Amino acid sequence: MSNTPPATDRPEGSIGELGEFAVIDRITAGTTMTGSVELGPGDDAAVVTTPDGRVVISVDMLVDGVHFRSDWAGHEQIGRRAALAAMSDIAAMGAVPTGLVVAVAAPPSLPAERMLELGRGLSAAAAEAGAALVGGDLTRADALSLAVTVIGDLRGVRPVRRSGARAGDVVAVTGRLGWAAAGLTVLSRGFRSPAALVNAYRVPEPPLAAGPVAAASGATSMVDVSDGLLADLGHVAHASGVAINIRSASLQVHPRLVEVAAALGRDPLDWVLTGGDDHALAATFPHGATLPPGWEAIGSVGVPGDLGPVVTVDGAVREGAGGWDHFG
Amino acid sequence: MSNTPPATDRPEGSIGELGEFAVIDRITAGTTMTGSVELGPGDDAAVVTTPDGRVVISVDMLVDGVHFRSDWAGHEQIGRRAALAAMSDIAAMGAVPTGLVVAVAAPPSLPAERMLELGRGLSAAAAEAGAALVGGDLTRADALSLAVTVIGDLRGVRPVRRSGARAGDVVAVTGRLGWAAAGLTVLSRGFRSPAALVNAYRVPEPPLAAGPVAAASGATSMVDVSDGLLADLGHVAHASGVAINIRSASLQVHPRLVEVAAALGRDPLDWVLTGGDDHALAATFPHGATLPPGWEAIGSVGVPGDLGPVVTVDGAVREGAGGWDHFG
Repeated sequence: MSNTPPATDRPEGSIGELGEFAVIDRITAGTTMTGSVELGPGDDAAVVTTPDGRVVISVDMLVDGVHFRSDWAGHEQIGRRAALAAMSDIAAMGAVPTGLVVAVAAPPSLPAERMLELGRGLSAAAAEAGAALVGGDLTRADALSLAVTVIGDLRGVRPVRRSGARAGDVVAVTGRLGWAAAGLTVLSRGFRSPAALVNAYRVPEPPLAAGPVAAASGATSMVDVSDGLLADLGHVAHASGVAINIRSASLQVHPRLVEVAAALGRDPLDWVLTGGDDHALAATFPHGATLPPGWEAIGSVGVPGDLGPVVTVDGAVREGAGGWDHFG
Repeated sequence: MSNTPPATDRPEGSIGELGEFAVIDRITAGTTMTGSVELGPGDDAAVVTTPDGRVVISVDMLVDGVHFRSDWAGHEQIGRRAALAAMSDIAAMGAVPTGLVVAVAAPPSLPAERMLELGRGLSAAAAEAGAALVGGDLTRADALSLAVTVIGDLRGVRPVRRSGARAGDVVAVTGRLGWAAAGLTVLSRGFRSPAALVNAYRVPEPPLAAGPVAAASGATSMVDVSDGLLADLGHVAHASGVAINIRSASLQVHPRLVEVAAALGRDPLDWVLTGGDDHALAATFPHGATLPPGWEAIGSVGVPGDLGPVVTVDGAVREGAGGWDHFG
């Protein structure tokens, strides 16, 4: 991209009219760098320091109509959500996010102001987590999509994998469960309230800082709840070769979820067990370990029985609780 | 993703039928890791060593119908091209690619075998450059698109930026120029030969290893030729605040280009000056420096005149030689 200074931060017209480089320049002008950034946007690549000597990296893609609906959320919210969802994977390894790059495909008719909002959302969410949006690519497509890659630093801790759970461990979660799924259900029915749930769907509040704390506290395995609690603990069970049982009475079902579920004729526990978009963290800790603040014990790890490495709720396999398959 | 072992590497049916996790498992089973990879695919994020203490990062997005046509290239070729184009940005900083993550959006109807070919192409191109495909995300969309993020290591050299060109420097290039553009023109006219040009469009041969060598040889600025030689040198001119003049007689116009251009009634120099998909490298070196092997001097850097920081050919601004705008 060129170094032309931004003319205004409220451009008129579409991104097609403004042009790729002008849009990129304007997005770049609004980004905040951090001390980790040796070289930010504007060159062929960015340079970020890696004090740990290793870099953690993950990518998350969101497509309009699949992961979000641009008529259900503002573009700044979509940008925030994309950044937060991607950073959550870094937190789930026990690492701290340091840098983000984003590939955006968008229809040329998209108003440039909407694209700047998207960039602001990405940049703001990154900055609030102590990271920086250091680069990107912008191209044309029929539908809006974003691929956000996040890099992070382990600060000397070992990465917390999905495969480390052992029989006898305690299963714990932190962050919201079921809020975003409830919000999505509300929006799908044509409602716009309760605002707390709708907003939880639009912009999650993943407990990013809890990941490194859990790693330092001896978490044996950890996963970002992006496909639903049962599905993601299923990944842990498979990778670790263990069985996991959840006590439903230990799951916090917020009164708002209970209330909305009653109004819509739904079981709020379904949202808690299978909703993914909140990006809570689930982890296992050694038996008897003191859980870090904010973590709640919800179950236990056992030796796999006849059913193999499964996840049960109150001792039974729950029907219809498979993972979220983006082609399903 | 789960750790289910791959059942076969020639699956039947579409990716929608096979399912997201099964497709990812099969792609992952075919990837090759390197000594830099501390943790590969299969967890929330990958971990790659960064001996330099810094990481170079860049993302490149390719969309079917915009950057490639899946009816003009096989999916393994599309995967290779995406990986090579993205790694070229890392080379242009003087760094060595170490790891790639890819976000793929695809129609559920895409045959699973095509998706595995795409993965094989990405993985093979990475491996040939000494890097590894360490993670990804797969989701549903109406059109096929790939966002490839590459990280790289500087091995102790300073990053070579676009802004370092100084009056008096020599401008040099390495790699093919115009081949892919000629191949695209051939394909657009409904022809499938000459094979060398068509294949150059399908899978570029970017001189990745030349980037770190140029950095070690004192290159003052460097850029990946992805928008066309004039446009990308224009980025260098702007970022460095210099004027660049190219001597057209110094540009190698391959006999194949001359021949095809004559047959199609085109000027081969247009392809050389404005074609981008070859991912050649352009750099500036101090006056009198010995150019590394494979680099050809094609012009010189001067103080900007009345026209400002422009790129001229034989002293004149070339008409219609602006950059490639993906919304243009």
